[in-house]
Amino acid sequence: MRSELSWTNDIKSVDQSLAPVIQTAIDSKTKPLGSLGRIEALAKKICLVQQTAKPTITEPMMIVFAGNHGVTQSGVSAYPSEVTGQMILNFLAGGAAINVLCDSFDIGFEIVNVGVDLEVPMALLSAAYVDAVVATSTKNFALEPAMTIEQCVVAINVGRERAAHHVNTNVFLVGEMGIGNTSSAACITARITGNAIDVCVGRGTGLDDAALNHKAEVLSAALDLHRAVQDPLEVLATFGGFEIAAMVGVILEVATSGRLVVIDGYIATSAALIAHALVPETSDYMVFSHASQEPGHAIALAHLQARELLSLDLRLGEGSGAALAFPLVKAAVNIMRDMATFESASVSASVSESTSTTTSTTIS
Amino acid sequence: MRSELSWTNDIKSVDQSLAPVIQTAIDSKTKPLGSLGRIEALAKKICLVQQTAKPTITEPMMIVFAGNHGVTQSGVSAYPSEVTGQMILNFLAGGAAINVLCDSFDIGFEIVNVGVDLEVPMALLSAAYVDAVVATSTKNFALEPAMTIEQCVVAINVGRERAAHHVNTNVFLVGEMGIGNTSSAACITARITGNAIDVCVGRGTGLDDAALNHKAEVLSAALDLHRAVQDPLEVLATFGGFEIAAMVGVILEVATSGRLVVIDGYIATSAALIAHALVPETSDYMVFSHASQEPGHAIALAHLQARELLSLDLRLGEGSGAALAFPLVKAAVNIMRDMATFESASVSASVSESTSTTTSTTIS
Repeated sequence: MRSELSWTNDIKSVDQSLAPVIQTAIDSKTKPLGSLGRIEALAKKICLVQQTAKPTITEPMMIVFAGNHGVTQSGVSAYPSEVTGQMILNFLAGGAAINVLCDSFDIGFEIVNVGVDLEVPMALLSAAYVDAVVATSTKNFALEPAMTIEQCVVAINVGRERAAHHVNTNVFLVGEMGIGNTSSAACITARITGNAIDVCVGRGTGLDDAALNHKAEVLSAALDLHRAVQDPLEVLATFGGFEIAAMVGVILEVATSGRLVVIDGYIATSAALIAHALVPETSDYMVFSHASQEPGHAIALAHLQARELLSLDLRLGEGSGAALAFPLVKAAVNIMRDMATFESASVSASVSESTSTTTSTTIS
Repeated sequence: MRSELSWTNDIKSVDQSLAPVIQTAIDSKTKPLGSLGRIEALAKKICLVQQTAKPTITEPMMIVFAGNHGVTQSGVSAYPSEVTGQMILNFLAGGAAINVLCDSFDIGFEIVNVGVDLEVPMALLSAAYVDAVVATSTKNFALEPAMTIEQCVVAINVGRERAAHHVNTNVFLVGEMGIGNTSSAACITARITGNAIDVCVGRGTGLDDAALNHKAEVLSAALDLHRAVQDPLEVLATFGGFEIAAMVGVILEVATSGRLVVIDGYIATSAALIAHALVPETSDYMVFSHASQEPGHAIALAHLQARELLSLDLRLGEGSGAALAFPLVKAAVNIMRDMATFESASVSASVSESTSTTTSTTIS
């Protein structure tokens, strides 16, 4: 590991020695074997992260990172960069989709400004706003690297510090806001997975065909300009956004401290690609929430050998997919904690047991 | 409509005249057009049922119906019929998956016994248990019709009355417990959709290959025995369970009273097939929660031109898929109620508006 990230040397795979105990606990629940499908796999993953067959969720926290992107100068987005700051204010006023979803599911929320020139009115300032601006925009990666390695490490450390700050949180959710950042995600995905940009680029917040072709041309040229860049930290610095780097920092810190992180859509998954390229063991701590409409997302998930929980044709960002998947995490945890076993409930586990049961069963 | 179900003559399609108003309300929210994907479609459906752009959820209620099946005498299930009653007691003791899921998401719960010979210990009796036994089992439809038309109508009316009883509930969820009932669902699906039994039959709670072949043979012979049965009510009486008929009753009553019902998996969808065959307009009031591992479920959903919200490889029943989808219904409702509009939040709606915005935006 590069010296800037030497703290990640502590990241280990989850200890699998408890896996048989956890599987036995799942199989003893009053249901046919495997009948809760992917909820069982999710429960097992959470149990392994927490090293217990009775997992918990404490102070679940959505952290949304926001930053602006110089590449918007090359006309790759349907929206102007001003919207990033406008949406931060909308988040602080409680009116965005992610506010509604976090409120719906009792998820804590904070917005971390890592890259937007913004004056927040006093009336909107609260503990939910964290000012940690690295710079007021990345540079245009169609012309030069988006940030320096030093800036990239600063942004990673912002994410690391936010995760460390929430010491009682054992389930994090990460999302982002940054006009232009599907371009970053597309280039990161293309470079890390080795795929052509054509299959990694998408319409973002709503480009038409002509604009999509232009975006693909800009990104293709950028990847060619920076063709020598292969090191994951350099890929992040070259094509990334500050918000993507900060999400990498959350993932690395979560893995360091043995907690769980629910990854949102394409942009957050591009952060997961970088974290995984830096430290493959981070995969053990990540849950992938949903399949974005961006075509590159499936490529990124396949590279990570991950499968999303939800497929709802979302393309909003803000952490909205992670928030919508959170109830499934809660369900998996509660199934492990609160569901009866065949033994405790006196329920026949199979035909072979039926001869020993009677119709006048009792619940012990 | 047959005279027994003449009350369903009142069922109408939802009034579409509000659709443009609802769509405008969705599109005015601070997000790119369509970016909440299928959550938007779900929100629109709920709004049309409730005839408002500000929908609500009041006293959401899971009703699980339980009944035994004579066809188990032909060896079509991995579990003995005794398990149906044992699971009712487990539901009442709060230890089943569906209890945990309803508790997790603040969904009310009741279990209605429509077909199980069961003595419930005093300690477990509560308002959550409804004794409405039509008969202690259906007959073996491999030999004769599962129930008489009269019994079928009684069971439908049980479901109708439960939905009518919960007068303040505007979102129902339906599930079932009944060892052997994937056989009923498979035959109903085959007969209503016109597909061969081979593509409608599955492993249920866990049959091996030999047992699956036996199940398919039994069901194929039963379909042949009852080949003249085509009328939906007769199909239900011939192949159904009392719990399936009761779910049909809930759906019909929900549609009559302009409310919403979230359908669980394969068995509940077979009830939806019957309800739809009786009164096609009932589709407007149904949301399909998840794609079961039973292969016939996709066929049933396709016949109903419906798409499931979740795909989690569940095959438990009990309403578990409907409960897991409920947070998405809640999210859709809250998005409509609580999310800001572009106007209220002073956020640019597109590039074309960007020239009129400044970086010093304010939230009104």
